[in-house]
Amino acid sequence: MIGLDWGTTSLRAYRLDQAGAVLDKRESKSGILSVKPGGFPDELHNIAKDWLEAGEKLVVIAGMAGSKQGWAEAPYLACPVSVAEIARATLPVPFPATRVRLVPGLKARDADGMPEVMRGEETQILGVLDDLPEQEATLCLPGSHSKWVRVRAGRILDFSTHMTGEVFAALSAHTILARSLHRSAAHHPGAFARGLDRAGQGGGLLHQLFGLRSLSLFDAMPQLEAASYLSGLLIGHEVAAALEAGVAPPVHLVGAEALTLRYGAALAAFGIPSVTQTEDAAARGLFQIGVAIDAARITAC
Amino acid sequence: MIGLDWGTTSLRAYRLDQAGAVLDKRESKSGILSVKPGGFPDELHNIAKDWLEAGEKLVVIAGMAGSKQGWAEAPYLACPVSVAEIARATLPVPFPATRVRLVPGLKARDADGMPEVMRGEETQILGVLDDLPEQEATLCLPGSHSKWVRVRAGRILDFSTHMTGEVFAALSAHTILARSLHRSAAHHPGAFARGLDRAGQGGGLLHQLFGLRSLSLFDAMPQLEAASYLSGLLIGHEVAAALEAGVAPPVHLVGAEALTLRYGAALAAFGIPSVTQTEDAAARGLFQIGVAIDAARITAC
Repeated sequence: MIGLDWGTTSLRAYRLDQAGAVLDKRESKSGILSVKPGGFPDELHNIAKDWLEAGEKLVVIAGMAGSKQGWAEAPYLACPVSVAEIARATLPVPFPATRVRLVPGLKARDADGMPEVMRGEETQILGVLDDLPEQEATLCLPGSHSKWVRVRAGRILDFSTHMTGEVFAALSAHTILARSLHRSAAHHPGAFARGLDRAGQGGGLLHQLFGLRSLSLFDAMPQLEAASYLSGLLIGHEVAAALEAGVAPPVHLVGAEALTLRYGAALAAFGIPSVTQTEDAAARGLFQIGVAIDAARITAC
Repeated sequence: MIGLDWGTTSLRAYRLDQAGAVLDKRESKSGILSVKPGGFPDELHNIAKDWLEAGEKLVVIAGMAGSKQGWAEAPYLACPVSVAEIARATLPVPFPATRVRLVPGLKARDADGMPEVMRGEETQILGVLDDLPEQEATLCLPGSHSKWVRVRAGRILDFSTHMTGEVFAALSAHTILARSLHRSAAHHPGAFARGLDRAGQGGGLLHQLFGLRSLSLFDAMPQLEAASYLSGLLIGHEVAAALEAGVAPPVHLVGAEALTLRYGAALAAFGIPSVTQTEDAAARGLFQIGVAIDAARITAC
């Protein structure tokens, strides 16, 4: 089968064998923003022509390609959900000679009843779900929009999003803090730890953010350390809020190593153990959905 | 005398009589960023030529003109301070026939020992200080960098800054939230109140910010209301943190009406009374400094 993780600004394609092993892997910048209206079938051909010609009969596509702005809209599915339910809710789209199905995003409610959404991350969650014990576990997928996910017995129960990565990007580029930091500086673990510590102090995040400016004015914050400090400050607030909402340790971190290392350090600072999932979780999740589609004998299109 | 509030992107000039009444008032966009090196004396001539020719003998300049990037650096003065101490710390700069003095910024430490700075706002504080009782009072100057200030018996004790206004601007223009809101929409008190309410719930600010995106995806947040909701969310977090740090009610709000109304509503939602200072506090503060300079018989330059 073929699995696609088709996001806003990037496209990742996997050819998977019958055991889920990755036979081949491709990446392009043809995110959905760069695809012309009606251009999705052509784009799929572009990236997977030889795989399709070799006879692959199922393409599973996750991510923003299933959104209103994508190929077609696969409506958000309400949690809790299992992989079988996600597979049943995949949306078939017309394509010659091959079944192509779009994975729905997920929706949930937070503890205050506010709506929550994800689209794309659900495949990464499904990719690690099989390895987890039956009892409740907590997953954290750090990123622009970090997800904290409760799972139990093969089901995604609910989740909570924190806009941490995107807030970091906006503050470090578009506020007065930009003058205090080098955005391309190497990660500085000591400064990151100082930011984490600061997050645990008083005054609130909006006050602590200005403190970075003040430190810098008094030459108490080297430009090469300031971005790591800001990262620690924001991740510290995110992790503190997630822990207050409740987690089932150890927290399972899924994502790019540069981020999972930081979140692991932040959790450790709160005394919470974590485990990092280093495999290609998205490909595994796409495979799980493909297996579930076949198991349900869904043969549309 | 002449008083100047000379900021990064704007310049306000006041001609004041011997009782502090504003005789004339001018405004220009010649903020310090637009002044060439060595160009400050010329710029002062530009905006106040006739006042100077009429014989004004003292010019007091507050704001970023006294910073490293300005005319000359009037170093930050450590709190607590009185108007007399600020006047004594003003920095004379060479100018023909007239005394010109730069007002120093102020520095302080927050409850955790972190540094704090202001430059320019101190004149607004001095402008209302005379009207306050001897016992401790709390001032709030909302803005890009909101200041919460403790004063007592004519002295500025310390203060705390929240980057609320600038964070609002960065998030509403440079994150995914930009798609959910009209930045130029009229203030919507109902949506502002919803944002305030939300700030009091769980999950933390970084989570609640993403909630605005989710609400918008589910058509539960009209674009014309989203900016007010975001404003309520951020101001709610700021006010909650300020109240936790401690205030002496009623809070005295000093600033533009569009903002003092919002902060008054936010404080009221927490059950805290507020009083709004509607006068031109900066001009009054510049006058107080001028009087104190004369009282101290500072006659440099």
